[in-house]
Amino acid sequence: MYGLIGKMRAARGKRDAVMDVLRETTGALPGCLSYVIAIDPVDADAIWVTEVWTDQASHKASLQLPEVQAAIAKARPFIAGFEFQVETQPVGGFGLPRAEAG
Amino acid sequence: MYGLIGKMRAARGKRDAVMDVLRETTGALPGCLSYVIAIDPVDADAIWVTEVWTDQASHKASLQLPEVQAAIAKARPFIAGFEFQVETQPVGGFGLPRAEAG
Repeated sequence: MYGLIGKMRAARGKRDAVMDVLRETTGALPGCLSYVIAIDPVDADAIWVTEVWTDQASHKASLQLPEVQAAIAKARPFIAGFEFQVETQPVGGFGLPRAEAG
Repeated sequence: MYGLIGKMRAARGKRDAVMDVLRETTGALPGCLSYVIAIDPVDADAIWVTEVWTDQASHKASLQLPEVQAAIAKARPFIAGFEFQVETQPVGGFGLPRAEAG
């Protein structure tokens, strides 16, 4: 599996606008096992996104999907920057689709 | 919902021992919606854990469960430290149990 943990910063006052775009977009994208969007209780403009994909190729391919391209274009004006991003290799746990969770 | 994103560091060469304990323990704990355990492809002793709980009280209560207490005791000798931990407030996304994903 392929994982991403990232923190983005919305432009001042635009966090909810970014969240709305993220929520509209994160349906069942091919290869996406989990995509959790969270706010930060102590940082009003921050958004944490944690993702699990079957593999890195699925994540990369998702960025080319028309609905994802449209979402990126829609959210971009509201995003001030990306502060943190790490790639991980999820190996198991609880709550992932059973066949993938190992 | 209540979320945690954390990075722990295993003692040198003990990452897999910690992973084994985490995998054995993370069954269906009350209030746990997602618990993903990941290795770091560029940091051999690091383990990333991303958690989603129905609420903070459920997470806190889980730490008192006998099986979790036993796992903590079992893993502790293999853990060098915790390098990063952030609390989040997950609000939606994909892959969480439907009733909670909002």
